[in-house]
Amino acid sequence: MILEVATLDVRAGLGPSFERDFATASALIRSIPGYLSHELQRCIETEGRYLLLVRWETVSAHTEGFRKSAQYAQWKGLLHPYYNPFPVVEHYRRVPEGPA
Amino acid sequence: MILEVATLDVRAGLGPSFERDFATASALIRSIPGYLSHELQRCIETEGRYLLLVRWETVSAHTEGFRKSAQYAQWKGLLHPYYNPFPVVEHYRRVPEGPA
Repeated sequence: MILEVATLDVRAGLGPSFERDFATASALIRSIPGYLSHELQRCIETEGRYLLLVRWETVSAHTEGFRKSAQYAQWKGLLHPYYNPFPVVEHYRRVPEGPA
Repeated sequence: MILEVATLDVRAGLGPSFERDFATASALIRSIPGYLSHELQRCIETEGRYLLLVRWETVSAHTEGFRKSAQYAQWKGLLHPYYNPFPVVEHYRRVPEGPA
C-alpha cells in the first residue's frame, strides 16, 4: 500500500469554496482502480493550508491510472485553480516497526 | 481528533539507524494520554525523507502533554540528532465531506 501526500495551499479566502469543490471531486478519485481511501485535512496553524492523503494499491495506480484518466481532467479543472503555489506530490511507504 | 504532521529529513546515510531508533522511541509516544495512533512513512522519491503522522485526541495532548513530559526528553535525545533541517510540525483537523 502506498500513501500519496500533498500539501495544498489554497488562495486566500477560497477555503470554503475549495472544500465544496473537493467534496464533488472526491467522487472522481474514488472511481479509479487501485484507489483505497483518502482524507482531506485542514491545517490549524496556517490559514488556507490543507493536507491530502490518498492510499493507493500502487504508485502507478495514481501516476498512470489516475493522472491519465478522463476523471483527472475533471479533477484538475475543479481543483487546480485554487492552488498557489502548485503542490508537490510525493509517495510514501509505511515503515514497519515490528510488534507493538 | 487531531492529526499531527511532520516531514522529517534525516541526515544522509542515517535512515536505517533512524528507523531502528524510531521503533524504540515509539513506545514513548504511545504512553502519553490522548495519543491515539501513529505511522512513520518513508518517501519513495526523496532519499532520507519521512512523514510522521500522529493522531491525538486534542492539540494540547501533543503540545502540552507530550512535549512537557519526561518521555519527550528521551524522544528528543533519540531522534532530534537525525534531523536536518529541524522539522516544522503542524496540526490538522479532517474536513468532513458529507455522505460518501
